[in-house]
Amino acid sequence: MGVREIRAKTIVILGAGYAGLRVAKKLERSDLWRNHRVVLVNKHNYHQFLTEIHEAAAGTRRGDELRVPLASILDLDRKVQLIKGTVRVIDRENRQVLIEETGQEITYDYLVVALGSEPEYFEIEGLRENCLALRSLNSSRLIRTHIEKVFAQSKAEPEDGGLLTFVIGGGGLTGVELAGELVDAVPRLCRTYDVQPERVKIYCVEAGSTLLPGMDSDLIARATEILAAKGISIITGTAITRVTDRSVSLAGGREIETRTVIWTGGVRGNRLIAQGGFTVNPRGRATVRPTLQSDDDPNVYIIGDSALIVNPETGRALPPTAQLSIQQGTRAAKNLIRQIGGLDPEPFCPVYKGVLVSLGRQTAVGAVGRLRPAGGLARWLKDMVTVKYLLSLGQVTRFGFGALAGLGKAARMTVFR
Amino acid sequence: MGVREIRAKTIVILGAGYAGLRVAKKLERSDLWRNHRVVLVNKHNYHQFLTEIHEAAAGTRRGDELRVPLASILDLDRKVQLIKGTVRVIDRENRQVLIEETGQEITYDYLVVALGSEPEYFEIEGLRENCLALRSLNSSRLIRTHIEKVFAQSKAEPEDGGLLTFVIGGGGLTGVELAGELVDAVPRLCRTYDVQPERVKIYCVEAGSTLLPGMDSDLIARATEILAAKGISIITGTAITRVTDRSVSLAGGREIETRTVIWTGGVRGNRLIAQGGFTVNPRGRATVRPTLQSDDDPNVYIIGDSALIVNPETGRALPPTAQLSIQQGTRAAKNLIRQIGGLDPEPFCPVYKGVLVSLGRQTAVGAVGRLRPAGGLARWLKDMVTVKYLLSLGQVTRFGFGALAGLGKAARMTVFR
Repeated sequence: MGVREIRAKTIVILGAGYAGLRVAKKLERSDLWRNHRVVLVNKHNYHQFLTEIHEAAAGTRRGDELRVPLASILDLDRKVQLIKGTVRVIDRENRQVLIEETGQEITYDYLVVALGSEPEYFEIEGLRENCLALRSLNSSRLIRTHIEKVFAQSKAEPEDGGLLTFVIGGGGLTGVELAGELVDAVPRLCRTYDVQPERVKIYCVEAGSTLLPGMDSDLIARATEILAAKGISIITGTAITRVTDRSVSLAGGREIETRTVIWTGGVRGNRLIAQGGFTVNPRGRATVRPTLQSDDDPNVYIIGDSALIVNPETGRALPPTAQLSIQQGTRAAKNLIRQIGGLDPEPFCPVYKGVLVSLGRQTAVGAVGRLRPAGGLARWLKDMVTVKYLLSLGQVTRFGFGALAGLGKAARMTVFR
Repeated sequence: MGVREIRAKTIVILGAGYAGLRVAKKLERSDLWRNHRVVLVNKHNYHQFLTEIHEAAAGTRRGDELRVPLASILDLDRKVQLIKGTVRVIDRENRQVLIEETGQEITYDYLVVALGSEPEYFEIEGLRENCLALRSLNSSRLIRTHIEKVFAQSKAEPEDGGLLTFVIGGGGLTGVELAGELVDAVPRLCRTYDVQPERVKIYCVEAGSTLLPGMDSDLIARATEILAAKGISIITGTAITRVTDRSVSLAGGREIETRTVIWTGGVRGNRLIAQGGFTVNPRGRATVRPTLQSDDDPNVYIIGDSALIVNPETGRALPPTAQLSIQQGTRAAKNLIRQIGGLDPEPFCPVYKGVLVSLGRQTAVGAVGRLRPAGGLARWLKDMVTVKYLLSLGQVTRFGFGALAGLGKAARMTVFR
C-alpha cells in the first residue's frame, strides 16, 4: 500500500452543546478523522436539550428524558475521542487545555471553544446567592426539587411567608417558556401536596418594556395575553434591585415575599474565554472574525453563546440561541476542514429561521417568516423542530419511526424516550 | 310514635388518629349516636397511617397512599359530625373547645382528648430550628422533597459539604424503620440524580446504649446487624449536643457535616393538654385513672400518645404506640357508653401483642410472644397487621379482596391504593 506521509493534527472541541456537538458530528461525517485526531471535551457524557430544560424545572418532564448519551450520537471509539471533564484553563501560549478533575493536559493544533454561557447577575444585590439559575439539566432538577419542597413546606409549616410565590426573573425566551410550563404544572403540584390552587402565585419580572425583548411585536402581544390569561402576574419595565432568601425588591420600591427566585434574566460568555486571554465584550462574549476564528488566534474557533456575532444590518449582537449555535457549528466544522486542507475559511452567514415560543403544555406562539402561528399549530411546529434536530443527530431511528410521524405531544414523548 | 324524652349529650372527640378514630368508629357502631351528638374534630379530613410515614419520607410510597378520607370510614352525615380544624384551646372551665381557623366554640358534655404527641427536642441547641421532624404525613413529604433537593443540589453545586449525608436522630422504632427505608431508597435516588451510591452516607444516632431501647435484646441484635449490613452507620450511647444548618455535633466532640437531620428521638404529650390545665408528667403526658378518665375531670377521657399509662409490673410508662392507642380507643368508647348509661367505667387492660419492626422494603424483625420472626416472614406479618387494621376500619372491601389475600408487597400495594 502506498502510504502518504501526513502530519496528523489534533482538533480539540470544548463543549458538547448545540454548537460543539455539531462540529464533532460534522467532522465525524467528513474524512478528517481518518488522518487527524478529533477530541471532544465535555463535563458530562451526554448532550442535553438545553432549550427544553424548563420542562424538567417545572417537573412536566423527567430530567433524564432531556439528554442523549454522546456514545449514541458519535462513534466515540473510532472517530471522536471523548474526554469527560471540566475545562480549568485554556492555555493559548502552550496550545493546551487543562482538565480540572484529572489534571490532564491536552495539546491542540486547532481548538473549537463552544463552552456556552453562564448566568449574568448584573451585580444585583443578593441575586447570585438567593436565586436558582436555569442553566443546565442539573440546575433544572434542583429547581424542580426546590419547588416540590416549598409545596411540601407550605403544608408542614403554619406560616406561609411567600412559600407558594414563585418569581421568574427575566421575561426573555427562557423566562417566558418556564412561566408557561410552571403554571401548567400547578394543578398537579396542588393535588400532590393538598394545596389550594388559589394560593399559588407566579410572577414574571422583566426589566425591558415588554416580555420577549427584541422579538416580533405581534408575537409579544400574543404571548403576553396567553400568559396573563393563565394567571401569571407579568411585571415589565421593572428591574429587580435586591433579592434575599425571603423576598424580591423591585425598582420603585415594591417587594414580593418569596422563597423562590428563578433567574433567567441574562447570560454572559463563559469566563474561561476572558481568562484564556481572548478579547471579549463587556458581557464576556469573544469577538470573532466573520469566519468564526478568534480575533486573537486563527487556529481557534469560538462559537455558540460565547461568541459575539454582530448583525451587520443593525450593528447589534445576535441573541444567543440554539439555532445560531447549530449554524455556527456547521460553519466552524467546514472552515476547519478547509483550513487544514489549505483553503481559506469562509464567512458565517446566519439564517434566521424564525422563533417558536412554547407557552406550556398545549400552546405556543411563533414568528416564522411572515407567519405568526399560535396555539396548537405552533406547539406542533415546535415539536417538529425537536424532531428535526434529533434527526440531525441520528437519534430518530434509535427511538423508532414514531418520532418521524411525530404528531405533537405523542411525538415528543416518543422522541425523548 | 311514642317519643321518649332524652336529654342529648354532646361527645366531642379531639383527633382522628389511631386512638380518636377508634372511639368515633366504636360510638358509630353503638346506638349512642341515635340519641346523642358525636363530634369529631380533626385538622385534616383524612386519617393518616402514621406508623407507615417513614415510607413517604423515604419516597418509597406516595404520601397520598398513606391516608384514607374520614368520609370513607365514618358515616359523617348521619352518625358522626366532622369538624375540620385545629384545636386552639381546651377550656375546661366552660367545657368548650375553641377552633383555631373558624373561631368556633364547641361545647361538650364529654370530651375525648386524642391529640397525639409532638416532637421532644430536649432543648438540644439548634435542633428544633435545623431538623426535620418525622411526625405527620405532611412532614414526611417535606422530608422526601428535602432529600430529593439535596440530591439535585449535589450535582448542581460543586462543593459537597455533607449534602449526601443523612443523619437520623433517634434509634427508636421510628428512627430504625426510617433508616431501613431510606437506605433502600438510595439506589433509585442515585439513578434519578446521577449520583454515585458510595457518596451517600446514612447515620442513625441514638443516645441510649442500643437501638430500639426497651425492646427485646434478641430483636435489637438482629435489627442492628441488618441495618449495619445495609451500610448504615449506627452510633449508640451518644447524644446529639448541637445542630446547625450544616452539621451535627455529638457528645464526645465528633462532628458530622450534613444538611439533613431527621429527628425521631423523642415525643411529648400535645401541649394543649398542659395548657388546658390537666395534670401532666414532665414529658407533657396526662395522668389518667385506670379507666382512662382524666385525673382532673371524670367527663374527660385522655388517650393515645398524650396519656400516661403506667405498667403496674414495672412502674414505668408504656411507650406511645399505635397498638396501645387503638386499645385505649376501644376502652374509652366502651367507658363513655357505660358512663352515659349510668354504669361505672371499667379499667383499661393493655394487651401487648408484640412488635414488628420493618427494616426496608424486603425485611423486618419482630418479637411476638416467644417468637422472633425475621426477614420476609416478619415483613409479611407486618403487612398483615396493616391489613387487619384496614379491616377494622371497614376499608378492605373498598380496596377489594386482594387486600385480604394479601401476600406481602402485592397486598400492601392493593391495600393502600
